[in-house]
Order: sequence, then structure tokens, then C-alpha cells
Amino acid sequence: MLFTYSYSLLKMMRLLLLLLLCLPALAQEPDRHPSLLSRPADMVAVRKGLAQYPLLGKSYAAMQEIADQGLATPMDVPVPVDPAGGYTHEQHKRNYYAMQAAGLCYSISKDKKYAMFVRDMLLQYSRMIPGLKNHPQARGSSPGRLFHQALNDCNWLAYSIQGYDAVYETLTTEERKKIENGAFRPMCRFLTEDLKPWFNLVHNHGVWAVAAVGMTGYVLKDQDLVQKALLGTEKDGKGGFLAQMSTLFSPDGYYTEGPYYVRYALLPFFWFAQAIENNEPSQRIFEYRNQILKKAFYATLQLTNSDGKFYPLNDALKEKGWDTQELVSALAITFQRYGIDPSLRQLAVQQGRVLLNAGGVEVAKLVKTTTKEVTDFVRKSVLYSDGPEGKSGGLAILRSGAGDEQSSVVFKYTAHGLSHGHFDKLMLAFYDEGREILTDYGAARFLNVEPKFGGRYLPENDSFAMQTIAHNTVTVDEKPHFGGKEKAAEEESGELYFADINQPSAQIVSARANTAYSDVKLQRTLLLYRESAQDKPIVVDIFRVNAEKAHQYDLPFYYAGHLIETSFPYQPFLTSRQTLGKNNGYQHLWVEAEATPKTSPATLTWLNNSRFYSVTTATDSTARLFLTRIGANDPSFNLRPEPAMIVRQKWARGGSFLSVIEPHGQFDPTAETASGAQSAIAGLRLLHDSPEATIVEVAYRNGRKFRLAVANQDPDGQQSHQVRLSDGDFAWKGYYQIKNINK
Amino acid sequence: MLFTYSYSLLKMMRLLLLLLLCLPALAQEPDRHPSLLSRPADMVAVRKGLAQYPLLGKSYAAMQEIADQGLATPMDVPVPVDPAGGYTHEQHKRNYYAMQAAGLCYSISKDKKYAMFVRDMLLQYSRMIPGLKNHPQARGSSPGRLFHQALNDCNWLAYSIQGYDAVYETLTTEERKKIENGAFRPMCRFLTEDLKPWFNLVHNHGVWAVAAVGMTGYVLKDQDLVQKALLGTEKDGKGGFLAQMSTLFSPDGYYTEGPYYVRYALLPFFWFAQAIENNEPSQRIFEYRNQILKKAFYATLQLTNSDGKFYPLNDALKEKGWDTQELVSALAITFQRYGIDPSLRQLAVQQGRVLLNAGGVEVAKLVKTTTKEVTDFVRKSVLYSDGPEGKSGGLAILRSGAGDEQSSVVFKYTAHGLSHGHFDKLMLAFYDEGREILTDYGAARFLNVEPKFGGRYLPENDSFAMQTIAHNTVTVDEKPHFGGKEKAAEEESGELYFADINQPSAQIVSARANTAYSDVKLQRTLLLYRESAQDKPIVVDIFRVNAEKAHQYDLPFYYAGHLIETSFPYQPFLTSRQTLGKNNGYQHLWVEAEATPKTSPATLTWLNNSRFYSVTTATDSTARLFLTRIGANDPSFNLRPEPAMIVRQKWARGGSFLSVIEPHGQFDPTAETASGAQSAIAGLRLLHDSPEATIVEVAYRNGRKFRLAVANQDPDGQQSHQVRLSDGDFAWKGYYQIKNINK
Repeated sequence: MLFTYSYSLLKMMRLLLLLLLCLPALAQEPDRHPSLLSRPADMVAVRKGLAQYPLLGKSYAAMQEIADQGLATPMDVPVPVDPAGGYTHEQHKRNYYAMQAAGLCYSISKDKKYAMFVRDMLLQYSRMIPGLKNHPQARGSSPGRLFHQALNDCNWLAYSIQGYDAVYETLTTEERKKIENGAFRPMCRFLTEDLKPWFNLVHNHGVWAVAAVGMTGYVLKDQDLVQKALLGTEKDGKGGFLAQMSTLFSPDGYYTEGPYYVRYALLPFFWFAQAIENNEPSQRIFEYRNQILKKAFYATLQLTNSDGKFYPLNDALKEKGWDTQELVSALAITFQRYGIDPSLRQLAVQQGRVLLNAGGVEVAKLVKTTTKEVTDFVRKSVLYSDGPEGKSGGLAILRSGAGDEQSSVVFKYTAHGLSHGHFDKLMLAFYDEGREILTDYGAARFLNVEPKFGGRYLPENDSFAMQTIAHNTVTVDEKPHFGGKEKAAEEESGELYFADINQPSAQIVSARANTAYSDVKLQRTLLLYRESAQDKPIVVDIFRVNAEKAHQYDLPFYYAGHLIETSFPYQPFLTSRQTLGKNNGYQHLWVEAEATPKTSPATLTWLNNSRFYSVTTATDSTARLFLTRIGANDPSFNLRPEPAMIVRQKWARGGSFLSVIEPHGQFDPTAETASGAQSAIAGLRLLHDSPEATIVEVAYRNGRKFRLAVANQDPDGQQSHQVRLSDGDFAWKGYYQIKNINK
Repeated sequence: MLFTYSYSLLKMMRLLLLLLLCLPALAQEPDRHPSLLSRPADMVAVRKGLAQYPLLGKSYAAMQEIADQGLATPMDVPVPVDPAGGYTHEQHKRNYYAMQAAGLCYSISKDKKYAMFVRDMLLQYSRMIPGLKNHPQARGSSPGRLFHQALNDCNWLAYSIQGYDAVYETLTTEERKKIENGAFRPMCRFLTEDLKPWFNLVHNHGVWAVAAVGMTGYVLKDQDLVQKALLGTEKDGKGGFLAQMSTLFSPDGYYTEGPYYVRYALLPFFWFAQAIENNEPSQRIFEYRNQILKKAFYATLQLTNSDGKFYPLNDALKEKGWDTQELVSALAITFQRYGIDPSLRQLAVQQGRVLLNAGGVEVAKLVKTTTKEVTDFVRKSVLYSDGPEGKSGGLAILRSGAGDEQSSVVFKYTAHGLSHGHFDKLMLAFYDEGREILTDYGAARFLNVEPKFGGRYLPENDSFAMQTIAHNTVTVDEKPHFGGKEKAAEEESGELYFADINQPSAQIVSARANTAYSDVKLQRTLLLYRESAQDKPIVVDIFRVNAEKAHQYDLPFYYAGHLIETSFPYQPFLTSRQTLGKNNGYQHLWVEAEATPKTSPATLTWLNNSRFYSVTTATDSTARLFLTRIGANDPSFNLRPEPAMIVRQKWARGGSFLSVIEPHGQFDPTAETASGAQSAIAGLRLLHDSPEATIVEVAYRNGRKFRLAVANQDPDGQQSHQVRLSDGDFAWKGYYQIKNINK
């Protein structure tokens, strides 16, 4: 009995012991790491998928290479000194990539060496960070400490915290304390306190800031940080992640800064959302605003040209495409949270790598298992609204043709787009067969190229790239929209007048900018029209300016390619050149030739790769044409020497620019064949133009003709309109009508 | 008996009849058609291979498409009116392609419709050709009849005769008579009689002329035409095919007009040689001059950059590469006559089509059966001589690295290269990773683009592209080599001084041009040097000018890419621009900036795609630097606006330009990384420079240094040399020596 008793006691004690041992583990169970982009169970799936799905295996190998290179190199955590592109800048970038990579490698392989690497590096950072003042190269209102700007410090934090999270369980309490108190907390304090106003900004920088701090909050189990990240430092929802989600996107997912910066912002949006879902699923963050993140992701994909490059609206570098690392993360998380979309297989193949999480497994699986061509992602004609309520204008993309052959028109009547916005209301760009034809300059910047102004935005970004005259839209009296003032521009936006994009062979959109100038109202109507006998569509462009007084109007067509011919005589400036003007971007334009056309229309034809393109524009007695090239007043040769034809009109009481943009013919230097070098447009006439209506006629060389009537002031698209023309009345109902006049 | 007799008689008569019927057939047997690129037996192999080898099947399908399109379109043999690129020009081209294609389709399918098409079209030509006078757009000494120039008439003849040959046996005697007398004989008479001097020209036009007439001679069984084609109209061997074979190539296969035109000439060379072999094998034409055609073919392949494009020496369009149709024929015939070369599999894959003959079957077989990567074609360092005896200078190509990563230096000290030659003795071009880095302008021409001067060479080809200042070589006193006179230039050539290309890490070649100017002798020494610690080679460029009097020397470096920075201050011309000079190409150069460097060396860095490149040049007190851009005095915008840095020196008694060209760093806009934007060269000094010897020192930023000594007048490379330098004597034996000076 005693024996039994003692045995039972022993058993009880053992049980108790076991219970005691297990208790913390059980208590910790819901908190186990990793906890940000993946949970431990996800890592099991990743581990299992490595051998099954080549793309996953390849992605892990690439991550291992980054981590192993970090491990193989003497640890280097230098005191921050250099600007972007410089040594310490690049080294701290390498470090955070290496910590993220090593963390992932540890989570997957459980090889302790990776954990030790992250630990040692973070300990080094924890000794250095508390002593850091603002970076010596810091400028402006958001100085960094590890880097010249706080944005990069946020990048560091968002990557490094993933490394820490991954190896958390391998660390002693003492080590955790050192790292958290020496590195992560000071960094969060710096961002949320020293830079409080900036932290609360609704802007791509703000997204990075809240994501970095919020992810850190989850790992440090610091609800205060999480709340600040979600709701702003005052926890009132005026700043923070939810405010960013609510205001940066329009209801249909258009991001107000444009495609170049949404690419950049999508990463912290998706990372932090994923961290929220993994830690506080009750937030239902992926359902927020009717699945706004899903809409944002798909809108971002639609904002690429058929070669996968983002349309370079606002400040943008043209090299960026949908294969960028940010979209690799977004694709995987979209698959995990919103379901697998087989039409994105091509995108996954082009990205060539996946995120190492549960969503990435699905992406890699899709690439492997669907060997046959699935339906490709379709770039379609779209109308996006801008602004949190979709009431700040928008962006139209009209598309014709499929796949690599597609032609597209980009038409911008959005809000300003924050600090990276350009003064380019009603801007037009045209693309064909994956190539830029009528171009948008994008940004003047050589990203991270140290000798080019430290890799930052160049002075010519302000003095040229942002200016109205740098874009294919109208500049009045040589002055930019909104006087070139960001603040004024932020308060206004373009507005959609009407659109009809449902008939593939005749897609039309009309938009207005009534506030870009105090006494001139701008309205542009673009028709993407495919005549049945032509194998390519044309763009009919009616740019109407409404004004009571006399003004000078300049409408440039920046074209990509080599000038082939003009239909009009011009005076070339052969032995000396001058600039087109003195300010507002005009000082950067050389005038290469000038013309006063005697006959209308005037056509300029250029060659771009395998095709010819023409702009044909109707001219009247006030018209002058300038052939220009970018590059004057550019002492450091920061600008690309690109050509344009600028149409200048001086109208007493407004008027309409009427132009047709057109791909034609073919050039094959290998086969030595050239055909259709001449524009297919024989005539272009403004038959009627008044504040009420504009009617134009386009005639092809093959004898076909059509007329387009636009009601300039139809309140609801339901009104009847009638205009007396020399050959009879033109009557229609609604916003517009197209009439074929074929004999 | 009677019965038997009559039976026997009947039998005999039958036999006789059979014999009579067979006799012509038997007699014709050795003459059966096709007889040019293939013999009937070859067509059996082609037919058999169609299903076996996908590339062959694909090539036949493409040929069928051309033929079927011809058949499907109303026959159109218009009276010749238009210049190159115009309607009738393109239509007659389409016609000859269609006839060749239909002929091939008939030979393979035996479908009579193809034969009827060729017959009907040739009958139409036979009615039109006798009445043709010179083409209304004809210019100069070689007018055409069907086309503006006789060269195109030769193309027509060479293609059409293949169509005729293929369907010959389907035609009645009457039809043959009409076609031969109406189309082929008048065309041959026109070429051999009206254009006799031109027909006998040794030149790419001449090759086309003799090939067309010679092939026609074989089909028409006209030995007189064949003899004229082989030996010239006087049958004395001064003109004709054998003279072309003997004089246009150097003994090692370099074609004197350069790679762009050898590409063009190889087609008639190989076609006609093939026709000779098929009709008169006793000529052993493929053995001629130690297999000169084989050497020519391989030399042509070596004259491509790693992206497969031909180096654009002399008049050349840059789009042309080794996948051009001419090389498709040459490859197949090379395989048939000289054996199969598996290292050319990659070329065949890139060409994507084969000639439909026995050689083409072998090419298609190689592509199919060797599924694993065979050894790729190796582009190696080569020294080609120029001139029939190899005594008219030559061309050096120095190469470092393999495959897509390869860097190459092109150094030209050839003969003038006939009428398409440029005045560019000792010209340098540099390529890296498949891209142009230091460029040669090539030709000013938009081939077949009618609005651009009828698709012909543009006026700016003479006024700029051919001029010395348009090239990376020295112009003295703003005057071109040989006074810009072709006749004078034809009589002279550059000469190789010495070369040593056997050590991959230090390849050197030195050449002279002593006759380009009456009182200045030019010598350039190029060293392609790979320092063991650097991952890319540099080019050390010593350009010595020997003169007794004072002159001005201009050495341009035309670079491809965007200027990143200069090590020297300069005066930019911000608001107005002038030209560098008034004549000899100088009138086409805008001066964008000017500098008088105070310190030496001067470095200019640019970005090209994923890498930075620098030219570093040692300057002295007489040096001025100009940053220029092509485009002044170009009223029709015919020139490409490309930049250059021009080094100008004014030396009393000659001197040496010393420069280093260097790839460095990396730029990855997708990963947003940039490194090594700064040149790796820290110092560049001319330690000694005299008519006898030049010694230079190159110092890297990493502390390494080396010196290169060149004996400027060593007669045999066996002499001992010694020069006293400030830090001791430099002694060496032979043409040159490199000494590392690493601490």
C-alpha cells in the first residue's frame, strides 16, 4: 500500500513535473516563431515542397546563396557614412538581406549556423544603434540613421525583424534582451517618436514605416507598437496601416502614386497584412475594404505594358516590371489569401522565383503541374478611379489586340499622386508591341548610381521631368499645371467625363482638367479605333481648350524612334541651336527645327524597331510646329536626348487640337523589306468645334472615312445633339457618335 | 509465218517506238533539272528528310507559304517605276522570291500548280523585258531595268533562273523559247554587253552579276555565258568569278569590303560555286585557292560579335547578323562540300531555317539529332590579312572571356575596301557582353525605306559616316585620311607591325598607317590586358603620330550609353550650341562641352545596360577635350544623335595618345543595386615616348601597376632595347614587354 502510494505519488509527481514542463510550452504554443510571413506549420509545407516543385527548390537555393555568402564573409556592420550607392549604404542593405535569408534558411533547414549568424549580426547592430545620430548624408524631414533617409531604415527593420523572428527560439533571454533593447526598440522609438509626423504620413514611406514597426511589435509582443502601426502614433486612425489601406487606394484598387510606387508599396502592404493575419486573424485584414489588397494587386498587374514593364507615370524608372521582387511576395500572398489564379502562371514563370511560404508553395506548384499553356493573363481596357472614394479622377488604359501584338493608350486624369506626382493632367502615352511609341519621360534619376547625385532624384527631375511641357499634354502660356505647386495640385484632380470601352474596335474616353489653369479648361477625348480594313488601330485625339482670352497652347508628342519624314517643310537649325524657352522645363528643350505649316494636316513619321508610326495633326493659320530634343541646360548630362514634335497654337478663345496617332507598315532589316512607310491617313479635319460640340473627320488613303462627334457638355449622356455642317446636319444622342462615310 | 512475221514486225516496231521515245530521255538524263543548287537526287534526300527533321519541314513550310502566297495573289508584273522601297521595286522582289519558292515546291512536291505559276510569271516577264529601257529612277554607271540599279536586276536573275530551272521539264519547247529569248537572254545581254565594264568589276556587285549570268548559262546550256561568267566578258580571267575568288579574299578568307558585304557576296559565291560543282565537277571549284570559300565562310562567322551581329566596318547596317538568309545558304553548302561541323549547331538553331538542298538536310539533321549542347562555336582572337596576297594590311580581333560575357576589340588596318570603304585607318571599336561600347557608326542609310532617299545611301554617308572624324581613330588637321579620295585610298593600306595574341591575359597588336597623310605617320598599339585581380580586361591604347611639323590631332571615342561622370571640369554649352568644324564630317558634330584638363589622366564614365565603362586618357598641356553629339547640319534628320569624347592635341613634332578603355562595376535596376561606378584606373602615364620607343604605366586603384614598353621601330622583333626612366632603366628584347610592378 505504501508502495502503491509512493508509486502513485511518484506517478503524480512525474505527471506534475511533466505538466509544469509542458505548461510554458503549451502557453507559448500560439506564439511560436516564425510568426510574420509564415507560421511554423507553413514551413512544414515549404520543406515538403522543396523537392517536389523545382521553382520552390530554386528559390530556396537562391536564398541559401545569399545567406551562405553572408556567413562566408567577415561580418561587417560599419558606422553609417555613405549616401545611396556608397559602401556603407550597400553594406547595410546586404546585411538585412542576409539576415532575412539566414532566418528563412534556419526555419527551413534548422541548421543552427544560420541562427547564430543572425544573432551575431543583430548583437553587433544592438551595440551600434543606440549611439547613432542622424546619418551624415541625411537631408530633409525624414533623416535616417543607418541610411541617409528613414525609408531605408524602415527597410532594414522590416527585413531584419524577419531574421530575428525566425531564430527567436534559439536565443537566450539575455540575447533577446540585448537585441530588442539595443536594436529594435531604439529603431521603433526613432521612427514613432523622433519622426512622428513622417511616421503618420499617408504615403509609400508611411506604409514601410508602419509595416516595419508593426511587424516588430508582433515579434516583440508589444501591443503598443502594433497599435501605433495600425492606427498611427496617436492611435486615432488618422495615420497608420488602416488609414493607408483606406486612403491610398481607390475603391477599385488604383494606388494614387501610380504603378511605380505601388510596386514598391505592395511589399509592406502584403507583408504586414500577412503578419496581422498570422497574429490577429480576427482583424480579417485581407477582407478589409472589400478585399482592397486583392484589387490593388490585380490593378498593379493591369498597369503593365505587354512586355511586363510598368507604365512610367509620375516619378518612375522605366526598367521596373512585374517580375520585380516586390511582386514575388505579393503574388504568393495573394494565392494564399485569395486563391490560386492559373492565369498568373506566366507571371510566375517570368518572376522565376517564389516567396518561401505557404503561398509560394502554391505558386511553384502551379508552375510545375500546369505544363500546358493555361489561359494567359489578359491585359484589358480598364478605367480606374483615383482617390479613397474614387472621386479624384482616374486613369484609363485602352487596349487593342492580344499578347505581344497589343497596342495600348494610357490616359491620365488622376489626382496629383503625392510628392512624386507630375504636373501632367490629361497626359497621353502610346505603346505598341511591347515598345514605347509616344513616351512619358518618367523620372530623372539613376537609382543608386552614386556619381549621379548620390543615386537620388536629380535636379532635372524637378526642372524637367515633373513639368507639364515634359509630357504629352497641353501647357498654357509656357506655365505648368497648378503653377507647378504640389500643394495646389494635391487639392485638385482630373475628372472622367465619359467613357465607352465595350466595343473593341471603337473605345472612347473623355476627361477634363478644369482647375489646372485658372482661366483655361482642358478636355481631352481619345478614341482607339480599328478600321476593319486596317490591321492596326489608330488613336484619334481631340484636345479641347476652353478659354475666354487669348493664350498660347503647346501640345508635345514625345516619340521614340528615328524621324523618317514630315509632310511639311521646316526650317532646320543646322549650325547653331537655341532653347525653346527659359523656364518650366522649356529651358531643357533644344529647337532642332521650326515650321509654319501652310497645309493641314501635318504628319511626322518615325521608325521604331519593326514598324513605322505617325502623328498627323490638323493645323490652322495660328499653328507652329517645333521639332525639339531634350538636353539643353543640363550641365551634368542627366537627361536623355529624346525628340518631340510640339504643336503650338495661339487661339483667341480656345480651340481644339486634333491629331491621329497611328502604327503603319513594316520594316524588316534582316529580310531587307520595308512597306507602308507612309501614313495611312489622307485627311484630318475639324468640321465643327464649339464649347457644345466637336466633330472631326478622318479619311484613310484607301478611301474610307469616318466622322466622330463629341458632345462637350452633355450632363448625363442622354441628350440629343444636332450640328449643321456644310454637307448637312449631324445629329446624335448622348456623349458621342461615330459615323462611317464609305462610298 | 506471215502472222509470225507481222507479229515480230509489230514487236520490233513497238520496240523501236519505245526506243525512240526513250532516246531523248536517255540522252537528257545527265542534264536533268534542277541543276543549280541541287540535282534531282538531292531532292530525293530533301523529300525523305521533311518528316524526319523538323527544321527541314519548317523551312519547306515557310517556302510553301511564300509560293502559295504568290499563287493566291493576282499575278502582278508591273512596269518598273519606283525606287527602292517603292511599290514596283518591292513587287519585283516579291516575284523573284515567289518564283524561286515555287520552283523549290515543285521540285519537292511535284505539284504542277507551282510549275504553272513559274511558267506564267516568266512568260509575263518575257513579254515585258525586251521593251524595257533603263529604269526611270536609275542613277550612275550601273542602271538597272527592272530596278533602279543593275545589282537588283542580278538578284532577280539569280532567283528567277532557279525557278525556271526547277520547272524546266514541265515546259514545252515553245514556252522555253519564249522565256529564254524574252526574259533571260535579254537580261544576260544587258548585263554582259550594255554594262560590260560593270559586269567585269571585282566587287560585290560583280559577284552577283557573274553568278546570275553563270547560273543562267548552265540552265540555258550556253557555254558562252558560262565562260563569260567564269572569266569575264573577254574570257581573259581579268573579270569573272575566278577573278573574284582570287582577288576579293585574302589567303585566309578575309573579304576586302568587310563583313557586311561579305555576307551579301557569300550568297552568289556559294550559289554559283554550287552550280559549277553540279554542272562541271571537274572544275573542283570548292578546292579553288586552298578551299578559299571554306575560309571565307569561317572568317565571316568570326567577324560577328558575341550577339551574332556583324562588326559594322565600312558601309554597314548594324541590324545584320549571322542569322541572315545569305548565311543560311552558305552554311548548308559548306556542310555539303566541306563536311559537317557540330560547333555550328547553335548557328543553325538561331537561323531557324535551312536551305532546301542536300546540305540543308545535314544541317537540319544536326539540329535534331544532337540534343545535348555540343561544343559551341568559339569566337577567338584572330588576325586576318587583307588583299589577294595578304599584303594589304588586315584586321585584328582581340577577344577575352567566353560566350555571352566576351569582350572584344576590333582593330582595322585593312585596305580601303572598295567603294564602300571608310577613311578610318587604325580604327578601334570595343564590344562587351554582346553590346557595342565604343562604336563604329556604320552606314548612314535606312535600307529600303523609301522616304529616306529612296532607301539608298544617304548624303550623310559621304559627308559623315565615311569621314575619318566619324571613327575612333586620329584625324590630322581636320582632314580625312587620303584627303577623302577613294582612288588614293585604294592604292594604299594599313600594315601590321607586330602581334602576339597567344597569351589570353595579354594580347597585343600594333599596326601602322604611313600613307594616310603625306607628312604624318600613324601607329597604334592595342593591348587587351586582364589583370588577375580584375574580372574584366582593359584595353591599353597607344596611338603614336610621327611628324616633323606641328599639327592638330583629334582622337574621338564614340561611346554607346549615358554619360555618368567625368573626372575633369568642363564648360557645358547650355543655351546655345555650335559645330566642331565646317567640313570633313566636323560640320555634323555639335559641341556639347569643352575642357582644358589641368590634371592627367582625364576619365569619362558612361553606363551601358548593366555595366559602367570608362575611357581614361593621359593629357598634356596642349590637350583639349570635346564632348560632342552627332546631328548638326543634318536637315533631314538622317543621322543618329550619338555622343563622343574627342581628345585634341597640338604637338610640334608628334606624340602619343595614351588611353585605357575599361568595363567596370555593375548596375541592376531590378535588384536596385549599383557597384563599381568608379573607374578602376588610378593613374596613367606616358613614361617615355620617342620615335624609337614608348613606355607607359597603368596603375589600378587596388595598388597594382604595370608598365608596357613598345619598340616603335624593331625591324624583326629580335632587337634589344633600353630606355632610361627616372626610376631606372627599362630593358627588353623584341617588340614589346609588360612588367608588373606590384609591391
